[in-house]
Amino acid sequence: MMNQWIAAVDLGGTTSKIAFISKEGSIVHKWEIPTDNSDEGANITANIAASIDEKLKQLGVSKEVLLGIGMGAPGPVDYETGVILNAVNLGWKDNFPLKDSLEAATSLPAAVENDANCAALGEMWMGAGKGAKDLVCVTLGTGVGGGVIVNGRIVQGVNGAAGEIGHSTAVPFGGAPCNCGKTGCLETVASATGIVRLAIEEIKKDELQGELAKLFSVQQKITAKDVFDYAKTGDPIGQKVLNEVSFHLGLILANLANTLNPEIIVLGGGVSKAGSILLDSVNSYFAKFAFPAVKNSTKLALATLGNDAGVLGAGWLIKSKLPLND
Amino acid sequence: MMNQWIAAVDLGGTTSKIAFISKEGSIVHKWEIPTDNSDEGANITANIAASIDEKLKQLGVSKEVLLGIGMGAPGPVDYETGVILNAVNLGWKDNFPLKDSLEAATSLPAAVENDANCAALGEMWMGAGKGAKDLVCVTLGTGVGGGVIVNGRIVQGVNGAAGEIGHSTAVPFGGAPCNCGKTGCLETVASATGIVRLAIEEIKKDELQGELAKLFSVQQKITAKDVFDYAKTGDPIGQKVLNEVSFHLGLILANLANTLNPEIIVLGGGVSKAGSILLDSVNSYFAKFAFPAVKNSTKLALATLGNDAGVLGAGWLIKSKLPLND
Repeated sequence: MMNQWIAAVDLGGTTSKIAFISKEGSIVHKWEIPTDNSDEGANITANIAASIDEKLKQLGVSKEVLLGIGMGAPGPVDYETGVILNAVNLGWKDNFPLKDSLEAATSLPAAVENDANCAALGEMWMGAGKGAKDLVCVTLGTGVGGGVIVNGRIVQGVNGAAGEIGHSTAVPFGGAPCNCGKTGCLETVASATGIVRLAIEEIKKDELQGELAKLFSVQQKITAKDVFDYAKTGDPIGQKVLNEVSFHLGLILANLANTLNPEIIVLGGGVSKAGSILLDSVNSYFAKFAFPAVKNSTKLALATLGNDAGVLGAGWLIKSKLPLND
Repeated sequence: MMNQWIAAVDLGGTTSKIAFISKEGSIVHKWEIPTDNSDEGANITANIAASIDEKLKQLGVSKEVLLGIGMGAPGPVDYETGVILNAVNLGWKDNFPLKDSLEAATSLPAAVENDANCAALGEMWMGAGKGAKDLVCVTLGTGVGGGVIVNGRIVQGVNGAAGEIGHSTAVPFGGAPCNCGKTGCLETVASATGIVRLAIEEIKKDELQGELAKLFSVQQKITAKDVFDYAKTGDPIGQKVLNEVSFHLGLILANLANTLNPEIIVLGGGVSKAGSILLDSVNSYFAKFAFPAVKNSTKLALATLGNDAGVLGAGWLIKSKLPLND
């Protein structure tokens, strides 16, 4: 019998990743196309459909090979209706019927989900959480996203706002303003942007010295990667910021685990590339703040799929609808 | 056709509540018996079975009226196997097969669950959360218990430790010791015991005066009810403690809601009898710390079932297994 694939899309504001994925979760082909935000996003799904058709033609494969198309999109998505509620960066008006548009453009059964939720599903299917049914994924990037999985399914919440772990309040009083309108969100202290802000504040206090402060005085800018790289070498400001970020993440994630006791909490996104120096430090606060029975059973781990988590999770949206033995 | 009932038990360390509940959730009969902890708890399920038989005889009703027996038990329960992992107060050794023991004693199909989870199920079925499928219940009593319901089902967690909201860390540094071995748990600042402790600490600081301080100097003791009663009259120490308790509850519950976006968070237990003065104050902090889309959709409410929540939730364990139209 012919192999069958799932088409999967990780839709971004400037670039979209597209992949063909086997039913076993292998990425068979993947490529990228620019996202065309013009004309209120009118061309986005048509461009994806055309790119898929072209790829199939290049490969000399019939479209019948495709079982369906899954998509992760940046914004709140109503999973049941497939409507994306708000997607300013993509040009679409509020409440754009993304699933319907994708089905019309591709003639394939479609499923859509928020991109942070897709990353969680991807890590559950093929990544750090492989085999787990209760999993939380926190994506530490420019912002902080989250996906919560209970019994193999994304928790949506009554208003689709479950998983907003990045907007948990980490600094109850006097915290930095967040894009969401609140202050002191986890995103303000654990995103790449937030980490850089903490480091620059610390440098400007002029209490601690070191190489990171020197780098900043030369370049007038630093990155989150610089902060962790210098922390590894013992730089006092790097270490202080690492400790602060880890405290906030450890506390928020321990309290989340005290509530859900998931099998695994996966840390993904660019910031998680800091690796064991971050994981170990978060783990030490997590152990301090987690209920003993939770500490002994909920594991923290780094994401393993990198940028592929999104397309794999988008693929899972279709995979999970297939008959069990298919 | 004959009415059919569910037998339901809310097992306590000294007293057990037993009820016959209709399939529609009405408590038809309820009574209490002492819990016999002697002889490693050997008589507990036999006594319950005998009491149920006796009640049926008094009513002149055949045992065939009973569809099954549900029980809420104080301790961690493995819902799938029906084993109670740890129940020191009841005399049972670790890993006591409670469901099997109950089925053997009563000749009825049985289901068992942790008592805080039963309270949540009860409030979902017939109480403040009636009709909701995503609900969190926090029981503010001598301790602080919790039950988390997603899509109509209790979240168990990988080690059965989901719902330990009382052991979320509210005071990260310098918090009071908790029975669980950690410090600064929500239970240390939002249980009846914790509220009294906060008030006495405040009185002993001797910075604020008022009637509550006078009451304590006369009686050398106060209750959580006193704290709220005096807060209502404007007593400065009562109000300060109310504010502190509400801040901790508001922050922990907002972060929980930022993760799960449940339809409703129900506050139950003896402390919740303080009523609107507590609910309003918790709500103001909740609104401050919740993500906007969460604040606008997740409601806080007081429990409505009082002491009946436990037996109703225990009844739900059987109700939820009946065919849908039954």
